[in-house]
Amino acid sequence: MKAAVWHGLKDIRVEDVELRALREDEVKVRVAWAGICGSDLHEYEEGPVFVPVDAKADLTGEVAPLTMGHEFAGVVEEVGSKVTNFKVGDRVVVNPTLTYRKKHEEVDRFDGFNFIGLHGNGGFAKYANVPETNIHRLADNLTLQDGALVEPMAVAVQAVKDSGVELGDTVAVFGAGPIGLLTIIAAKASGASKIIVLDLSDNRLEKAKELGATHVINSGKEEPVQAVRAIAPDGVDVSFEVAGVAPTFKQAIDVTKPKGNMMIISIFARPIEWNPIQLINTGVNVLSSIVYTPSTFQRTIDAMSTGQLNPQGIITSQIVLDDIVNKGFEALTNDKTQSKILVELSGEK
Amino acid sequence: MKAAVWHGLKDIRVEDVELRALREDEVKVRVAWAGICGSDLHEYEEGPVFVPVDAKADLTGEVAPLTMGHEFAGVVEEVGSKVTNFKVGDRVVVNPTLTYRKKHEEVDRFDGFNFIGLHGNGGFAKYANVPETNIHRLADNLTLQDGALVEPMAVAVQAVKDSGVELGDTVAVFGAGPIGLLTIIAAKASGASKIIVLDLSDNRLEKAKELGATHVINSGKEEPVQAVRAIAPDGVDVSFEVAGVAPTFKQAIDVTKPKGNMMIISIFARPIEWNPIQLINTGVNVLSSIVYTPSTFQRTIDAMSTGQLNPQGIITSQIVLDDIVNKGFEALTNDKTQSKILVELSGEK
Repeated sequence: MKAAVWHGLKDIRVEDVELRALREDEVKVRVAWAGICGSDLHEYEEGPVFVPVDAKADLTGEVAPLTMGHEFAGVVEEVGSKVTNFKVGDRVVVNPTLTYRKKHEEVDRFDGFNFIGLHGNGGFAKYANVPETNIHRLADNLTLQDGALVEPMAVAVQAVKDSGVELGDTVAVFGAGPIGLLTIIAAKASGASKIIVLDLSDNRLEKAKELGATHVINSGKEEPVQAVRAIAPDGVDVSFEVAGVAPTFKQAIDVTKPKGNMMIISIFARPIEWNPIQLINTGVNVLSSIVYTPSTFQRTIDAMSTGQLNPQGIITSQIVLDDIVNKGFEALTNDKTQSKILVELSGEK
Repeated sequence: MKAAVWHGLKDIRVEDVELRALREDEVKVRVAWAGICGSDLHEYEEGPVFVPVDAKADLTGEVAPLTMGHEFAGVVEEVGSKVTNFKVGDRVVVNPTLTYRKKHEEVDRFDGFNFIGLHGNGGFAKYANVPETNIHRLADNLTLQDGALVEPMAVAVQAVKDSGVELGDTVAVFGAGPIGLLTIIAAKASGASKIIVLDLSDNRLEKAKELGATHVINSGKEEPVQAVRAIAPDGVDVSFEVAGVAPTFKQAIDVTKPKGNMMIISIFARPIEWNPIQLINTGVNVLSSIVYTPSTFQRTIDAMSTGQLNPQGIITSQIVLDDIVNKGFEALTNDKTQSKILVELSGEK
């Protein structure tokens, strides 16, 4: 079958690969749609980050070259002999986060994890074999394209949930990339009344407004801390750091009220220089979030099904697998109006 | 009257000063005992830190040279015309933290503060004039020497309270200086079962054991993270950073369980280089604490009165005012067996 395979930095090839044999506890998914994630882009632009190149990854048992793609949904094509909860034809979403499942789900992801599509073969292909434990049923009123948005949506839902956002809160979101935009959606659905979004790109800020931002600030044109304080003089209840650089890290703390939470959702590519006395002076708590629990993943599907979460607006482009490098990775690198690009595999609804 | 006056770096003089006129809302306190704090030492060794030298401080209206000392208790000598809650002869403790008192006490201290004894004249003198709002009555069963320990004890009580320590918890304390030692006492009183203390000085660790540490680790002799993990394999529930340097900041995060709190009580003299991804990897929350609310100050007196908090063990030396430089500041600088040095003023019980 055709697949988008990571061979190395700036070397992703659409080529023919053989799907390994289905295991007894696995479900073979016929992929309908798969999204390109910021993590995929990191592997393309500066990888390997997560992709195992020297030895097999612990939980997948796989090593590069491997098929990328971890935001995907599709239809069950075949089930392993021990699979009990799914049957051929079921419409499903894949939770790509593999963990050891030895600890309570709230802390299990800090005990080590692998990603299907980063540490092992993923969804930029016609088929993917996935452990039954990582398969969720798609709600009947959601399309398979909606299904491809569940994974990034769940990242934002987990962060907003753990940040303690409550009805009527004012929040600030630093960075209006895909996860920033989904954070707006999750915060709004969790009751936030004022959602202040900061970015350097007017295009992204325009998108943020469409998706629920009540105030947008171009940090290149206005001093961000003053601009947020003009809207929320006592500080915002919660801030989200979704940019991953030193200036936004410090600004996110400075705009937050004493005893409020600053939630990091970004991956910092390099260390920052920082004086922790900023916390002493402001009284702000610094929290972080990565991926999601299986429960949060399911709740994300549920809340999309009820219409509380509508992430479809982040899609800026739909492409076919053959175009994944030029119209996918290269477009995301060069064109800042791009947000979420979906790759059509079977294209089923 | 004789007082210990800060004139500049390494220039604290015991000299004769005039006490300014008592204001109508103030209480004149005849100081019995006053403790030397780490902040006082900072002003001596590398000041001015807090001491105002160019302009009058906002809340005290005072400027250097000024009388130091902010951990003190004594007897009411005189009351201003509008003072209603205290009378001559009352035994009292001073809360040296002045705030604008415009906000709820939980966040008021982040709206700006001055310290009596750092931003204005304090307690290393025979008398001090203090606003009635900052005076607390000393419980009958506590001595005035106990009273001089309330302020630093309250710092630790606030930090432990805000850290969420619960009955049965395992905690780690990085740094066994006076505030570290008081943190041990506050954590134990709050129900912590295992208290792991780390420091580079065996003398200090010995003291920590006397005051309630269940495990001590010399970070110069053992790898601190491994040593704590050997005692608490899943991580400690709460860690306290009371050293204020980059290595302990990172270690304190690394020994804490996912979703556990790392509480900073120290003042970092300089920025650190750090990658916030450490929080993403560990799931640890970073909190901070400075001073205390008026309620916590009162509760500290109450819990000392009931015998739940016994900070007396941190006293390593009692000196007279004339010796404050040589046997006080210089001793604290050069002799790491010193912890809390109390200065006798009236010496009353």
